[in-house]
Amino acid sequence: MDAAVIDLLGVLAYGELTAFERLATDAQLAPTVPDKVALGTMANVEFAHFQKLSKHLQDRGVDPFEAMAPFVDPLDSFHDSTQPADWYEGLIKAYVGDGMATDFYREVATYVKDDETRSLIQDVLADTGQASFAVAKVKEIIAEEPSVGGRLALWARRLVGEALIQAQQVAVERDALLELLVGSGDLAGITRLLKSITDKHTERMALLGLDA
Amino acid sequence: MDAAVIDLLGVLAYGELTAFERLATDAQLAPTVPDKVALGTMANVEFAHFQKLSKHLQDRGVDPFEAMAPFVDPLDSFHDSTQPADWYEGLIKAYVGDGMATDFYREVATYVKDDETRSLIQDVLADTGQASFAVAKVKEIIAEEPSVGGRLALWARRLVGEALIQAQQVAVERDALLELLVGSGDLAGITRLLKSITDKHTERMALLGLDA
Repeated sequence: MDAAVIDLLGVLAYGELTAFERLATDAQLAPTVPDKVALGTMANVEFAHFQKLSKHLQDRGVDPFEAMAPFVDPLDSFHDSTQPADWYEGLIKAYVGDGMATDFYREVATYVKDDETRSLIQDVLADTGQASFAVAKVKEIIAEEPSVGGRLALWARRLVGEALIQAQQVAVERDALLELLVGSGDLAGITRLLKSITDKHTERMALLGLDA
Repeated sequence: MDAAVIDLLGVLAYGELTAFERLATDAQLAPTVPDKVALGTMANVEFAHFQKLSKHLQDRGVDPFEAMAPFVDPLDSFHDSTQPADWYEGLIKAYVGDGMATDFYREVATYVKDDETRSLIQDVLADTGQASFAVAKVKEIIAEEPSVGGRLALWARRLVGEALIQAQQVAVERDALLELLVGSGDLAGITRLLKSITDKHTERMALLGLDA
């Protein structure tokens, strides 16, 4: 397995592991038991994805913990600096964070040459129902209390900002991964990737009736 | 399904759901990524148990959320009043709390007449590996820093105390469940149940080299 693919699976695996942890933690903010179960179910799916990625690495003789190691600090920093203050901020984080991560990995997956690895990545990116659940709940609260919309729009901007800061940090340190990401390795590739991710973010916010 | 069995499955289901949530939350206290994964794996097993219990109720025309409702406050109160301050308190809580709950349900399961329900209960009580993981980690730290042992012994006493307070509350309010628990419905049955649970707690603490 080449270094870039190990990096890609490592960041994806640790991303799933932290997503599991944070969704399960945010389940404590849920206003009702059914909401708690909905979030728990999603957390569980993320953990199953983590297990698949981990096994894929192991089966190819790569230690998953070593593969994840370079991404522990950036992902932990992202989560520590974006702790939701309430249930709705948690939902927005699940929606926006998961959405951006999915867009990012989907773009990158197209550059992976090994068929099994590519289809594994597409598999773990399958919809966990997070987006539609969050959209429905957030729309409800905005309809009831329109002022919440402004606060949540600002929160989403902060999430994107923090994600980009961490992503940039990773890009600077992981040459092989960066090269894989941009395809030809040129700056135009990065610009294209960023534009595609921010465009989709704008569409996601529009679904909530919010400005990006 | 009679009221007592619905109560029993309800408290068991909500117990698994909160166990999932707390284990996943405590995973954030883990000192290493492999420790985090170990706790996450256990949390995931608890969630799968919750899903099985929930489905069992649904298949018999019982709304799992209604069955869980009477136990939400007591279980939330237990967890809120026993938030681990660090990784080791979290491990003790997983070990002691899971152990006591398992002893309790195992005793009670023998009184359940419906075979499918009884075997489901025995199935979800199967060892998640929590105990041996916690014992190994806690023994390690006590060997390194013997003073930690005293603090953790006190913490375990508090856990037992808080659990009994909540259990008593539930017993007062849920007549049918109480009758199932004590078999014949007499006080001697309760005393026997409590003695059996505290005896096993003492054995568990002895495994750590601690007084109960």
